[in-house]
Amino acid sequence: MDPIKNVRPEILAFEPYSPGLSIDEIKERYGLSRVVKMASNENPLGASPVVQKALKSTAPLAFRYPQAASPKLALALAGYLDVPPSWIVTGNGSDEIIDLLVRVKARPGIDNIAAFEPCFSLYKSQARLCGVEFRQAPLNKDFSFPWEKLVDLTDENTALCFVTAPDNPSGRTPKAGELAGLAQKLPDQCLLVVDEAYMDFALPQKDYSLLSRLDSFANVVILRTFSKMYGLAGLRLGYGIMRPWLAEYLLRVKPPFSVNILAEKAGMAALKDKDFQQATLDAVVQGRESLSRGLTSLGCEVYPSQANFLMFELPKGSLDPDAFFKALLEKGIIIRPLVSYGLPDSFRVSVGDNSENREFLAATGEILSRGT
Amino acid sequence: MDPIKNVRPEILAFEPYSPGLSIDEIKERYGLSRVVKMASNENPLGASPVVQKALKSTAPLAFRYPQAASPKLALALAGYLDVPPSWIVTGNGSDEIIDLLVRVKARPGIDNIAAFEPCFSLYKSQARLCGVEFRQAPLNKDFSFPWEKLVDLTDENTALCFVTAPDNPSGRTPKAGELAGLAQKLPDQCLLVVDEAYMDFALPQKDYSLLSRLDSFANVVILRTFSKMYGLAGLRLGYGIMRPWLAEYLLRVKPPFSVNILAEKAGMAALKDKDFQQATLDAVVQGRESLSRGLTSLGCEVYPSQANFLMFELPKGSLDPDAFFKALLEKGIIIRPLVSYGLPDSFRVSVGDNSENREFLAATGEILSRGT
Repeated sequence: MDPIKNVRPEILAFEPYSPGLSIDEIKERYGLSRVVKMASNENPLGASPVVQKALKSTAPLAFRYPQAASPKLALALAGYLDVPPSWIVTGNGSDEIIDLLVRVKARPGIDNIAAFEPCFSLYKSQARLCGVEFRQAPLNKDFSFPWEKLVDLTDENTALCFVTAPDNPSGRTPKAGELAGLAQKLPDQCLLVVDEAYMDFALPQKDYSLLSRLDSFANVVILRTFSKMYGLAGLRLGYGIMRPWLAEYLLRVKPPFSVNILAEKAGMAALKDKDFQQATLDAVVQGRESLSRGLTSLGCEVYPSQANFLMFELPKGSLDPDAFFKALLEKGIIIRPLVSYGLPDSFRVSVGDNSENREFLAATGEILSRGT
Repeated sequence: MDPIKNVRPEILAFEPYSPGLSIDEIKERYGLSRVVKMASNENPLGASPVVQKALKSTAPLAFRYPQAASPKLALALAGYLDVPPSWIVTGNGSDEIIDLLVRVKARPGIDNIAAFEPCFSLYKSQARLCGVEFRQAPLNKDFSFPWEKLVDLTDENTALCFVTAPDNPSGRTPKAGELAGLAQKLPDQCLLVVDEAYMDFALPQKDYSLLSRLDSFANVVILRTFSKMYGLAGLRLGYGIMRPWLAEYLLRVKPPFSVNILAEKAGMAALKDKDFQQATLDAVVQGRESLSRGLTSLGCEVYPSQANFLMFELPKGSLDPDAFFKALLEKGIIIRPLVSYGLPDSFRVSVGDNSENREFLAATGEILSRGT
């Protein structure tokens, strides 16, 4: 069979998948016994002991199908967030909710989707996969948000407008009032999807999130995840908060068992684990501050962040970004180069625990002082 | 916002989601302390101790993103199945692979997909969700396969043809030679997708599966799952075996982390756990035989099955199917009514463990002898 003739034309344009090196592969290649991973914005404290206990006690249930649409988890989330359970749709990561929103809302070949540039790659890939035009307004040079330009992209066929708050990779976070203004200016039929993957780290949250005022914004959907603050990236658990009519349509088309049973139980345990949430928040706020101070004192340009990561650039003229990235790797530290975001001079470093943050700053200082 | 104006027209036709009663809800409603679930074709022996151990030891990794596309699991599967790793795509259940195949292969508004009727509901729902026509050829009255009628449905725009082997809900299983014949008769561009969710229970497997001859059939894709024989329904893990060019396109469009990290580790443990596989196979083969004998001796019509379930009908004129189902429920036994498959007089019962099988047969005998 000839692939060219046997694959949807839209699909031929997708780039081949290129996996990064795993921790094991990095250890082997550089002869390291330990690797510090600060590349994926995972929880700096690991998996909470309460969650681990829940996982262990749920292991005997691995052979059972989960309850379709995870109603117990939706109920727990409703209580936690103070919204009705009918407003919640859980998914196999918020990735699934993004895909479902595009599939339910956007007409292939007719509708379009708007977002800033750069943005989370999945908004674009799922739009393309659905045959829906994807439009982007470049962020300002300082990574602030040109709202008018985003609104100017939209028209009577704009189905969805995605905004990430806090933004990724910059960490900059729009004020709730700015999002409210955007929601009001979008065309009638357009949903504003605010991806709050990192909102748990923005303080005070009410200044940044529309969640507590969602009643007043019929066209706003909020996405959240258990991957960051709740330490469940490996289990794949995210959710959307939206009007019941929309939630119902998502549930009509969602495969019923897409959220696994361990994610469901772990998610419910994580919501109750306030100690771990507070410890994570403390670690992220303090770590963010010390990383920011440390990088700044090394001459790096650091962008303001309300997330559990920082975007930075090396001191001008100091070192080739690629050489810096490889030198860090040789020392067993992985951070995220932002080439795929169209930012070849920038890096994103996740906040680690105290010793990881110190190790990263020491290694960065050492590499920069050594020069090329 | 008006849903009618704000949802893709195709989506408006999807039926609202209606959850069945959970085990807990049944216990509460009927005042039961124990419920025997023989409705979802789960493993009669539960989760293997080896898998449970793997889950417990992996719990601390729950905060880490899985490795994109689960390469270690693909490698383990390749060894287990004796196919190259590049032929394997793992998914969040085989549900995800079904969806990916439709999305990669079928052009919305142009292509069509063919299958028998009845069939697994997801083939149809994912086709509709993608805006692709779904065509069905009714099975023969005895649930054997009218291959010519299936071929007659296809044309130059048929992207995929789905066949379930063993079939669900009948349990009947086409011979590998029949599938080979079908593969040869399908139009050039059409992929034959053989959903082998229950193939592990068909003996001898080489009489029924094309797996060992996949080299000779460039247009055949095989789907398998860890939900049945391997006892991992709750973890959501399935995979497709296909030509590398097709696997590569699926991986281009698949969200990279759709398989959770515990599914990956549990799947690798389950592949090595030959004792549990053999014990499951023994339990299913013996249980299938004793259920079939028992139901037949009660006057039921039982269909031949190579799967871990049996389809049957009550003795003619004996009892209203709905009354029978409710009487079983009151005794704490859940089986699957086949109304949603368009078979209001038929039931599907999963093979349970010895005591569950005995309990089901005793309850059925008691209800039938009691009459209406």
